[in-house]
Amino acid sequence: MPISHIGVCYYPEHWEPQEWPHHARLMRDAGIELVRIGEFAWSRIEPAPGEFHWQWLDDALASLANAGLSVIMCTPTACPPAWLIQRSPDTLPVDHHGAPRQFGSRRHYRFACAAYRDEALRISDAFAQRYASHPAIVGWQLDNEYGCHATTRSYSDDDLKAFRAWLEHKHGSPATLNERWGTVFWSQEYVGFDEVQLPNQTVTEANPSHWWDFYRFASDQVVAFNAAQATLLRQRCDSEVWLTHNFMGNFTDFDHFTVGADLDVATWDSYPLGFLDQGWFSDEEKLTYRRIGHPDWAAFHHDLYRAVGRGRFGVMEQQPGPVNWAESNALPLPSAPRFWAMEAIAHGAELVSFFRFQQYPQAQEQMHAALRLSNGDPAPAWSQILTLRAHIDQLPAQKIDRAPVALVFDYPSCWSSEIQPHCPGAWQLEWAFHFYSCVRALGLDVDIVHPGSELTGYRLVIVPGTICLPPELVGELAASGATAVFGPRSASRDSDGRLPKNLAPGAVQTLLPLRVEAVDSMRSGAQRQIEAARFRGTVTRWYEQISTHLDARLSDDQNGGFWYQNGAYHYLNGYPDQALLVSILNQICDQAGLDVHKLDEGLRLRRLGGLLFVFNSSPRNRRFHPHQGRCLIGSEELSQGEYAVWLQHERNCD
Amino acid sequence: MPISHIGVCYYPEHWEPQEWPHHARLMRDAGIELVRIGEFAWSRIEPAPGEFHWQWLDDALASLANAGLSVIMCTPTACPPAWLIQRSPDTLPVDHHGAPRQFGSRRHYRFACAAYRDEALRISDAFAQRYASHPAIVGWQLDNEYGCHATTRSYSDDDLKAFRAWLEHKHGSPATLNERWGTVFWSQEYVGFDEVQLPNQTVTEANPSHWWDFYRFASDQVVAFNAAQATLLRQRCDSEVWLTHNFMGNFTDFDHFTVGADLDVATWDSYPLGFLDQGWFSDEEKLTYRRIGHPDWAAFHHDLYRAVGRGRFGVMEQQPGPVNWAESNALPLPSAPRFWAMEAIAHGAELVSFFRFQQYPQAQEQMHAALRLSNGDPAPAWSQILTLRAHIDQLPAQKIDRAPVALVFDYPSCWSSEIQPHCPGAWQLEWAFHFYSCVRALGLDVDIVHPGSELTGYRLVIVPGTICLPPELVGELAASGATAVFGPRSASRDSDGRLPKNLAPGAVQTLLPLRVEAVDSMRSGAQRQIEAARFRGTVTRWYEQISTHLDARLSDDQNGGFWYQNGAYHYLNGYPDQALLVSILNQICDQAGLDVHKLDEGLRLRRLGGLLFVFNSSPRNRRFHPHQGRCLIGSEELSQGEYAVWLQHERNCD
Amino acid sequence: MPISHIGVCYYPEHWEPQEWPHHARLMRDAGIELVRIGEFAWSRIEPAPGEFHWQWLDDALASLANAGLSVIMCTPTACPPAWLIQRSPDTLPVDHHGAPRQFGSRRHYRFACAAYRDEALRISDAFAQRYASHPAIVGWQLDNEYGCHATTRSYSDDDLKAFRAWLEHKHGSPATLNERWGTVFWSQEYVGFDEVQLPNQTVTEANPSHWWDFYRFASDQVVAFNAAQATLLRQRCDSEVWLTHNFMGNFTDFDHFTVGADLDVATWDSYPLGFLDQGWFSDEEKLTYRRIGHPDWAAFHHDLYRAVGRGRFGVMEQQPGPVNWAESNALPLPSAPRFWAMEAIAHGAELVSFFRFQQYPQAQEQMHAALRLSNGDPAPAWSQILTLRAHIDQLPAQKIDRAPVALVFDYPSCWSSEIQPHCPGAWQLEWAFHFYSCVRALGLDVDIVHPGSELTGYRLVIVPGTICLPPELVGELAASGATAVFGPRSASRDSDGRLPKNLAPGAVQTLLPLRVEAVDSMRSGAQRQIEAARFRGTVTRWYEQISTHLDARLSDDQNGGFWYQNGAYHYLNGYPDQALLVSILNQICDQAGLDVHKLDEGLRLRRLGGLLFVFNSSPRNRRFHPHQGRCLIGSEELSQGEYAVWLQHERNCD
Repeated sequence: MPISHIGVCYYPEHWEPQEWPHHARLMRDAGIELVRIGEFAWSRIEPAPGEFHWQWLDDALASLANAGLSVIMCTPTACPPAWLIQRSPDTLPVDHHGAPRQFGSRRHYRFACAAYRDEALRISDAFAQRYASHPAIVGWQLDNEYGCHATTRSYSDDDLKAFRAWLEHKHGSPATLNERWGTVFWSQEYVGFDEVQLPNQTVTEANPSHWWDFYRFASDQVVAFNAAQATLLRQRCDSEVWLTHNFMGNFTDFDHFTVGADLDVATWDSYPLGFLDQGWFSDEEKLTYRRIGHPDWAAFHHDLYRAVGRGRFGVMEQQPGPVNWAESNALPLPSAPRFWAMEAIAHGAELVSFFRFQQYPQAQEQMHAALRLSNGDPAPAWSQILTLRAHIDQLPAQKIDRAPVALVFDYPSCWSSEIQPHCPGAWQLEWAFHFYSCVRALGLDVDIVHPGSELTGYRLVIVPGTICLPPELVGELAASGATAVFGPRSASRDSDGRLPKNLAPGAVQTLLPLRVEAVDSMRSGAQRQIEAARFRGTVTRWYEQISTHLDARLSDDQNGGFWYQNGAYHYLNGYPDQALLVSILNQICDQAGLDVHKLDEGLRLRRLGGLLFVFNSSPRNRRFHPHQGRCLIGSEELSQGEYAVWLQHERNCD
Repeated sequence: MPISHIGVCYYPEHWEPQEWPHHARLMRDAGIELVRIGEFAWSRIEPAPGEFHWQWLDDALASLANAGLSVIMCTPTACPPAWLIQRSPDTLPVDHHGAPRQFGSRRHYRFACAAYRDEALRISDAFAQRYASHPAIVGWQLDNEYGCHATTRSYSDDDLKAFRAWLEHKHGSPATLNERWGTVFWSQEYVGFDEVQLPNQTVTEANPSHWWDFYRFASDQVVAFNAAQATLLRQRCDSEVWLTHNFMGNFTDFDHFTVGADLDVATWDSYPLGFLDQGWFSDEEKLTYRRIGHPDWAAFHHDLYRAVGRGRFGVMEQQPGPVNWAESNALPLPSAPRFWAMEAIAHGAELVSFFRFQQYPQAQEQMHAALRLSNGDPAPAWSQILTLRAHIDQLPAQKIDRAPVALVFDYPSCWSSEIQPHCPGAWQLEWAFHFYSCVRALGLDVDIVHPGSELTGYRLVIVPGTICLPPELVGELAASGATAVFGPRSASRDSDGRLPKNLAPGAVQTLLPLRVEAVDSMRSGAQRQIEAARFRGTVTRWYEQISTHLDARLSDDQNGGFWYQNGAYHYLNGYPDQALLVSILNQICDQAGLDVHKLDEGLRLRRLGGLLFVFNSSPRNRRFHPHQGRCLIGSEELSQGEYAVWLQHERNCD
Repeated sequence: MPISHIGVCYYPEHWEPQEWPHHARLMRDAGIELVRIGEFAWSRIEPAPGEFHWQWLDDALASLANAGLSVIMCTPTACPPAWLIQRSPDTLPVDHHGAPRQFGSRRHYRFACAAYRDEALRISDAFAQRYASHPAIVGWQLDNEYGCHATTRSYSDDDLKAFRAWLEHKHGSPATLNERWGTVFWSQEYVGFDEVQLPNQTVTEANPSHWWDFYRFASDQVVAFNAAQATLLRQRCDSEVWLTHNFMGNFTDFDHFTVGADLDVATWDSYPLGFLDQGWFSDEEKLTYRRIGHPDWAAFHHDLYRAVGRGRFGVMEQQPGPVNWAESNALPLPSAPRFWAMEAIAHGAELVSFFRFQQYPQAQEQMHAALRLSNGDPAPAWSQILTLRAHIDQLPAQKIDRAPVALVFDYPSCWSSEIQPHCPGAWQLEWAFHFYSCVRALGLDVDIVHPGSELTGYRLVIVPGTICLPPELVGELAASGATAVFGPRSASRDSDGRLPKNLAPGAVQTLLPLRVEAVDSMRSGAQRQIEAARFRGTVTRWYEQISTHLDARLSDDQNGGFWYQNGAYHYLNGYPDQALLVSILNQICDQAGLDVHKLDEGLRLRRLGGLLFVFNSSPRNRRFHPHQGRCLIGSEELSQGEYAVWLQHERNCD
């Protein structure tokens, strides 16, 4: 296992200096090792332009260092101070109705604002000069939660100007853009780039290729913003100091793989209950898992961010109690904070940092729980941290193995599904999650991979309907020898957004000789029923009528064929419900020689080196005893919110 | 029967010139006779101001003509090119929040923009000069889908200025306007027309007469825009060339009767599945008819547009497969395209033109199915066209008869119901459809008529709650000798929007001595139950408490009387559900001596001259054998999406 | 009983002068005593700037006075005329998107506009000079329905300027504001007040203390606007002439207690059916009470406005038939108008004024019923007024007693619950109503009190989760000797919006030694089940985990304790459903020695001096016979919409 550290997010500026040493001791005594600070501190560091007040942060750092704690320092660029906005109101982002979004909360900047990019580098450099060589600082977080509150895309005149320049750079000439977007449709041809508008206020929907390029442009602005800070920090810092960004859950507005390429470690915000409440889950799931979260939600993100961080990831903000920002904010089960932390560790996290040390009694997050109550007393989560520390200390270090299953995830395909959903519930993130959840219900570990990944060693590759699939991936897949399952919509667009010349599923046709002739997009409640011996369930949302000489393995109640196979390659030409997809994947995994455990609802397994972790999210007690191994933590019977760890073999121990 | 042609919408500008002859031969070989082209071709014809490129369109026309196809040419004014908007940004419409709606899709013009009206005439005249005497061109379509994407009403300063002038022209003096609108209410009196604002951004709802005049004003702008093109085209074209516009389904934003008066033929867009998905139908109906459409939806529009075209109508765009623009986009049953086409023919359509020839793999409608797939292969609908052609060729030509039943439809009454719904589900179009659907469930044919129509010869006239009923219609009705049924809200406003001086139902009181004392507007789920021997069901949405010496024929569970009769005249003082309304209309039709067939759900009949058409939209197989006649197509048993045609007598054959 | 007058709202400007005497005689003959006029008459009185037309109003007043009617005159400032807006467009309010809200309906002014405040005083003074000493005028209504249509808060540059000045006046320095709002959070510190923006367009939610101050500021603008008119009118009028304002139902946008302090009498708009339709009630309640209203809705407001008027209140607008402004507008039961009037009288109303005399056939409210139809004939409500008059005349005058139960209500706490709901269904008004409804279901009378009230004499004080509870109230409560019940969220914020230093429930901890450690906010459908012998039901919406040495009296199915008691003090740490709350309050009332009648659903009691009123809102017939007394009106069996009045003793008769 990579070294897993317990961390905490801390805001010394919220508390009196005389409390800092006490806070630091409390952290240390609880087994906390890492402290993130500084990401919202700009107004305290530079209360007026050019007037720097470093002493307090020096002192706070010293308090932490004196207690033996390591520190993750942040650049404070997510929150420019009021004076900066007064001087440069063009910093503010503009919403899709064309209205500026004002100062008074956070993330009030647009990425395309050159003046702000300069200011962000100026303050980051000031931080770097001051603290780059501070011995307690082991890593830096650049900015915080890029894109949160829909700030990736902004619709100002600045953005328009930058977008036009980006288009010119990409396409070269209006004629090329016209050809790639198909602007002859609806008489939309451009003579000059200065005729192109932002796609947000058209009479009816804008050209999907127009939107797709705008999404790409906006993503590129984030990449550039991050890269500039990363370059600067690398110049100032020693090489062992790592750089990260704090990404988010359920968030796809920019390409995380590209941003991640400029970082050393990917970290993210894990709020399982907030996202359960406002996610796509059914009402039944939202009630069943109300106080522990969906069994796959955090796991999916761990596996995703492990990919974004090219193997290195952590949780920078771990929910410790009720949050404040969902429509309803459930009280987690008492054990939930350590359950979530142990789950992160099982997926290979190097860090689980709780958000935050002490609840601040004022401002937007005054109802966001912490490890300590607002009056300084321990919050319900505090005692769980002590248990967590003890549990971690019982675990031998392990190396993380490649999982047997790879699941492809692609951000531009997500954008395509947002721009042209074509059916309710079309979001590619949800589709990827659905395939992930069903294969995890078979007890398997999964690596999430981006479409350019090397695939050798995987036994099963899942392409959960990835819309824009590079032809190279198909070649890589064929070379890998893996079994593969393609979901509906796979390879249904080329990189310009066109339907493939050979129709969908584009290059996948080299593996499976079939093509999509028509799509049946289904409203909520509509379904195609399948009733075969081992395969029962429904296809909802999306069904494709296929032309092929292959026989369909199943057929539905509307004479539609479903599930086409060509040797090791499978094409699912519709969106199966959970029961049906689990049964199909079960058979495919059997054929691929994978060792499958069909798990009771809410139960999940995860292997890390020689360790086997068992997690129960179900309200029912669940029992799981592996074929081999010795129980280190917990037992074979687990109530909701409990876990067990079994040592199965010594392989991979460091 | 009028000559029914199969047509297709075609965009030569989407394809390579060398493909045009091949496309034309495919069309001809499939039995297609008419091709619509040009409505989105402005940017290809005039890529820069005054620079015309006609050659490609000349060539495309020649390809079609060489294959023996006739052509409907369009003026391209629905989509002004980018350069025009750059030069005249005031062309853009403004939404009801006051924000301009940008270039990047279609219909990006406001009708009240004088500069754009000039540009539209200039390009239309250029088309007319080039092609007016082209021998292949049999008709012209002016613009396309007036008002689509909520573009009838625009809220710019231009619109305000034009509205004030319109008001001054209509009312003469502010004093008259004050009196007609009742502006003394809430101290709203105007001293000058320059004090009147657009009604879109008032603190709470604007005066309904203010809105009603604004709706009328906006409708008049469309009428004028269309009339100017019609005048110009008539000057350039031979007299046998007909003019049309491509109207839409479920659309009432302008007065189609008035626009239609300047045309020769009315054509419309028939997308039964898209409109099922986004229409007012119940969830159950949306699932039952998911792949074939509601049994009355297209029929209602055929009968409506036959009225708009004063007897001459067609379908300019017929759905051939899944559309792209609804929230969910169902795959039609295989037979659906010819089912819909045959239904149009049964209602007297001269043309059924499929949209479109080949799916374009790019831009906004890349997911809109066509007769050919985007790669050029036949789409599922293609083989249906061949069958359709064969079926049409089996039908003897017929003359269309006046139907026994007339149903009144009025656009300003629709606007009134939108401006002041007063209960959920108040839209007059939906009410008219409900009465239409219930009388069609009795096997009857219906003519839809506007309130100024001549009514001689009808046995039954249905006034489905027409809010603003001209007193002349009441006189015409009395003179006609027809039985009449008035729905709730009938004649409840005068032409200024006032409650009638003698209360509702205004002039109807000359036929039925009763008046409305109070209205019970009912929330969803609320109902008044009726349990009489032959009449069972509920009144929902709207119920009127009546003062009269007439006895109510029924009474509800809240001591409310329902259904008043005075000889041949019936007043339904509430909105009955389908079961109740069918049973009431059944008895009224019996009394009127109409020959009623109470049909199984989903089954419909339609007569055309001596032919009887039978259509089954129900998922259950249905059986219908007429008392007389010989089956030409199909049989007495019909599965979902199938039709039969019976020859009953030779009368009316041409 | 205070003298209860029947009144009516009348608009002489809507009718021909020759009709006024006839109208006045009809009113007098029906037993109407008071007539409200003038609140929308500005454009008729001053059709052009400075040009006054008084004669018509003089004449209308004379017609009323000649019939022996008394008059409530209004200042017409709710509706400035068109010419004023043309001259001062800055009068218009600005919505939270920053768009001006235009002329064309009513309440088109922003309170912070100094120029409009001057105009409002100018026209009010003109009215006062003309009519202050008119002998028929017994009271004045200032403006009408402050804040209706979301006009309390406006977001113009004017508002921003005034808000900054207000902040400077309140906080003195930016440093103080920073400390009180906690702006160090998210780097939001202000150096000058000119950096503070309005809170409406921030990137994500603004600081809750920022919003709370903005709500306070907006409320203060209303207070100042009203106070200026009150001061002016008091200078002009005799001392026996009273001043009032016409407040609204379900409306909390400004602090009514503060506005009320500048008035003599509080009056309000009672529209039980409109508010049932658009209120928070369940679908089942909306259907059960569709034609009579929820049994507690009007009663709650009567008791609230009796507090706002410091004992003196009335209904200025009483629904007489269907309204026009809800989504569905039910027809009241025939008896409903007098049922509602008698209920107001039972709660101590001095006036029940029906809205309005005659239905106006034009403009926004043409579908709003009145006592007379638009053609002048009697509407269904007319005969009910005659019965009501007869009933009132049978009642001996009574003095109103202090109720045994006080329920605390606080406007700033409402705002806090709107700004930070934290769970669905969090509105403090709804919570107060829920506690009110449950204690009224036990047959008890309730006084609503503001948090600064003197509490001596109450047996039970209910604090229904009042978020911002002044510590003084806790002291007052302890001194009063009353039993007290505190709901969840009680005292959970200090006056700046901070969490209390000793955690929630702040000062309540002096009575009950417990504190809130965590909140479980529950989505719709989530619940904690309680199954004890006498106490069964669920906790929904909100549950607090408590730290205390007290034993919980109940426990839920998730091991959560519920209901803590310390002697006479009770803390309910969650939101109980109706069944559970009624059973808990029943036991607490028993312990407090209150005489409880657990009433059948829909039945309510109310005492006024020696009179006992019984009201049945249930669709089932209900029976109630008091232990003592003589029936004056009605009987012991009551159908829906009927009432009985019993004389229990002669005490308190005047």
